[in-house]
Amino acid sequence: MEQSTGLSRRTLLAWIGKTAGAAAMYQAMTALSFAGESSYKGHFELSAAPAGASVLVLGAGLAGMTAAYELRKAGYKVKVLEYNAKAGGRCWTLRGGDRYTELGGASQDCRFDQGLYFNPGPWRIPYHHHAILDYCGKFGVRLEPFIQVNHNALLHSSRAFNGQPKRYREVQADYQGHIAELLSKSVKQGALDQPVSAEDREKLLESLRVWAGLDDSNNYIKSIGSSMRRGFAVDAGGGLMPEAATSDLLDRQALLQSGLWLYLMVGQLHEFQTSIFQPVGGMDMIAQAFAKQIDGLVRYNAKVTRIQQNDSGVTVTYEDTTGSGGTRQEKADWCVCTLPLSILSQLQVDVGAPMQNAIRAVPYGASAKIGLQFKRRFWEQDERIYGGISYTDAPIGQIGYPNCDYGSSGKGVLLGGYVWQGKDAFEFTAMSPEMRVKKALEQGSQLHPQYREEFDNGIAVGWHRVPWTHGCYGVWSDEARKAHYHNLCQIDGRLILAGEHVSHLPAWQEGAILSAQDAISRLHRHAVARQTAA
Amino acid sequence: MEQSTGLSRRTLLAWIGKTAGAAAMYQAMTALSFAGESSYKGHFELSAAPAGASVLVLGAGLAGMTAAYELRKAGYKVKVLEYNAKAGGRCWTLRGGDRYTELGGASQDCRFDQGLYFNPGPWRIPYHHHAILDYCGKFGVRLEPFIQVNHNALLHSSRAFNGQPKRYREVQADYQGHIAELLSKSVKQGALDQPVSAEDREKLLESLRVWAGLDDSNNYIKSIGSSMRRGFAVDAGGGLMPEAATSDLLDRQALLQSGLWLYLMVGQLHEFQTSIFQPVGGMDMIAQAFAKQIDGLVRYNAKVTRIQQNDSGVTVTYEDTTGSGGTRQEKADWCVCTLPLSILSQLQVDVGAPMQNAIRAVPYGASAKIGLQFKRRFWEQDERIYGGISYTDAPIGQIGYPNCDYGSSGKGVLLGGYVWQGKDAFEFTAMSPEMRVKKALEQGSQLHPQYREEFDNGIAVGWHRVPWTHGCYGVWSDEARKAHYHNLCQIDGRLILAGEHVSHLPAWQEGAILSAQDAISRLHRHAVARQTAA
Repeated sequence: MEQSTGLSRRTLLAWIGKTAGAAAMYQAMTALSFAGESSYKGHFELSAAPAGASVLVLGAGLAGMTAAYELRKAGYKVKVLEYNAKAGGRCWTLRGGDRYTELGGASQDCRFDQGLYFNPGPWRIPYHHHAILDYCGKFGVRLEPFIQVNHNALLHSSRAFNGQPKRYREVQADYQGHIAELLSKSVKQGALDQPVSAEDREKLLESLRVWAGLDDSNNYIKSIGSSMRRGFAVDAGGGLMPEAATSDLLDRQALLQSGLWLYLMVGQLHEFQTSIFQPVGGMDMIAQAFAKQIDGLVRYNAKVTRIQQNDSGVTVTYEDTTGSGGTRQEKADWCVCTLPLSILSQLQVDVGAPMQNAIRAVPYGASAKIGLQFKRRFWEQDERIYGGISYTDAPIGQIGYPNCDYGSSGKGVLLGGYVWQGKDAFEFTAMSPEMRVKKALEQGSQLHPQYREEFDNGIAVGWHRVPWTHGCYGVWSDEARKAHYHNLCQIDGRLILAGEHVSHLPAWQEGAILSAQDAISRLHRHAVARQTAA
Repeated sequence: MEQSTGLSRRTLLAWIGKTAGAAAMYQAMTALSFAGESSYKGHFELSAAPAGASVLVLGAGLAGMTAAYELRKAGYKVKVLEYNAKAGGRCWTLRGGDRYTELGGASQDCRFDQGLYFNPGPWRIPYHHHAILDYCGKFGVRLEPFIQVNHNALLHSSRAFNGQPKRYREVQADYQGHIAELLSKSVKQGALDQPVSAEDREKLLESLRVWAGLDDSNNYIKSIGSSMRRGFAVDAGGGLMPEAATSDLLDRQALLQSGLWLYLMVGQLHEFQTSIFQPVGGMDMIAQAFAKQIDGLVRYNAKVTRIQQNDSGVTVTYEDTTGSGGTRQEKADWCVCTLPLSILSQLQVDVGAPMQNAIRAVPYGASAKIGLQFKRRFWEQDERIYGGISYTDAPIGQIGYPNCDYGSSGKGVLLGGYVWQGKDAFEFTAMSPEMRVKKALEQGSQLHPQYREEFDNGIAVGWHRVPWTHGCYGVWSDEARKAHYHNLCQIDGRLILAGEHVSHLPAWQEGAILSAQDAISRLHRHAVARQTAA
């Protein structure tokens, strides 16, 4: 759920196995929004809050906690209202002993073994998301590599290669080999006389041989050159072990028609390029680290029901959901509201029509994630897949292997499915949690027959049923962004919004943090200016 | 030093910046040997040694320790003679407090801070090196990802782009984009009518658009599509931060002529594909784990000087190098000798002419590695390079960033150079250690100007001067392998050889281990057969 354009997964779900339309959809996706780096360049600090000024922050997710942390440092009196009994919002990890009740009332008890976990929300942090990485450094959150591309992971289409999964390395080497051979043929035939000079032609042919492992004549054939890239049929050994043997290539036509080349793009998108990280121990280690920094500022179990403002301040009404409290109010000079628009649009909020319309303009993505515990790490022991992701055209979309404890002998937890948007996501969310797990097992066993024997227990989160978000993240259409984004970002009286939905990095934690930094910077300037004017 | 064909680094050093000859050299390299997977398939176990049979193992590197561990488990009486005061051989890590004296007498004291280290020998373990990974699992060696490809690392040629380094992601995206555009043009012009059917043509054009980020007309242009792969000029942000902006492309001709495309191949070679690992805390954690398993079997500080055998047994003469011992002898029924051929060829060894000739047929590679400690991790803090490798056409060849402790605030140790074979490696080895460090600093500062300000201390190992190997690894020519490999693998009387030099995975630790497993399997069968016959 932490992706900007959603290009990779959207395409993975929508395109694969289909015979047409990819190009059009791709163009639509790239036009939709930017898959950019953070524009955060380093140190962030506000100072010299107006004397006695107070800010009420709504929501203790990463946006809210960033705002609270920085505003208090600047000298503001800060309070935070949070719906849940703990901080983090979508920065969330499920572990053994956790109990989760979704909208509709279904409760699940997580029965993972000690030390194993599953992140229902964000699960990776690109190296260029500087703001979140800098907070991790400052707050002592340890990071480890997230394996995005695993050359030995599986690519699977039910409609290609008789449903037999192929290895990423085979698809990559053969796609590159085939196109390099085709381009070489064309260059040699002189078909490219005009665009390429004679000198460049030789260099081009040389580079294609090296890059793709072509032979002397620039053909991509079964050879040491191709097997050095796609893997050998019989591996080299020591002493008098069997001689190594080269491997057969995937047929060019079958590969082109399979659509499996689509998955080669994912790890080359800047959002998923190396180095990319995960916190050691689960994504909510970040939430916990932030929460420690703002200890004492947060009122938990506080469900906001009304946001009022006038020229002298903000009044927020909330319910104490522990049962003991009833309805209460909190007042402050200013308010930073980080509630998801899916929630905020259901509340009565005193803001002008432009912001009100913006709040209502952004639908929230459906997606579902399933965590599956198995009795042993068969993907490592049997398949030699250590971390990373396998892809399939089945609704589960992908299987994510744990990027930690490599080679350990105990149980293991997989991401058994990440059903990303579209009809599949709605269908998975509509199912009972038990059915989601069952479906993930059925579909995943096409890639890993060991599923049937080794399954232990599972847990499933459908984001439209998550009580504190009613959806996964704000899905901005191009039109909505043009019409409403600017209005959503304004200071409306004494209120400003923040969160991934108020950023050009939707669904990413970096978007939430940068949005908060931008919002409080502007609010701070505004507050100081008002004080000076007063 | 742990590579099979040596393709990547050999090419990196020999090709880059040169305007011709790459193709010929590439073909020579691929013909040289196989870059294969291990043919180890799982559980290895010998049992039922002949009653009272004894084996003397020479060398406590990974081959020798594998042999000792497995033979003792099978019931043999095992002793090991080791030149050094500790186990491991080339599986070696330098840490603060270590003192290293090379041939020629130069001594260096390692002055790294606590917890920092440098592997002068092997530094990574491919996922398909099953045997070493299985021993790591069995002996409790913790593994963490080695970052081979870092999209944000630097590619540098002194003869291209005015000596300005480019980012890996820029070179990759633009090389792919340019060749995808060229192939598209050719396909559209009908130049490929014969090899590609009409249906495949459409699929091919579609796949090229998606794979390389081409526009609707299959052109590679400055666009969101290209910037999503190569990175943006201005990154997307939150709220009202500056709008994202697309980045300029590298000129096709300049990129082709630069040779920087060469480095794109490295991480796609099967040896360097993900997932690839390093032991947590340094490569010698593996040596230490093996040594613990064979505790009590090893006589350290034992310099073998003579290997004699007759029909009744083996007698090995050695010197106790602690000064107290003088010349001693050890006897056994059988001998597994893992001494590097560079050492063994200097000793008097009772073997037949075929093995004798084989022992003398394999020269040992020169290479040098330099470890540099800096006062801060500027590559992370300033450059956002977290782990991985930058490449340059300067003699240092590459700069390796630490693949651990990401984002930590203390000092850090880089691999400041890996001078791999050829003239450069001999030159570096001929220098004093201080001069090697000085050269690494000079050359590395072309990529990282921060070197000058931040350098703390360094240490340098030239492998031809390492007392226990006199070289880095056995460099098999194709001719030598044809003429001598089979003879080198035979049981000669009561002696058999093992080590990376007796494998098709030269320079890799996996080659050493598989060689040992193969050697002791055959020796065991031989010993059992002799017993049965007797």
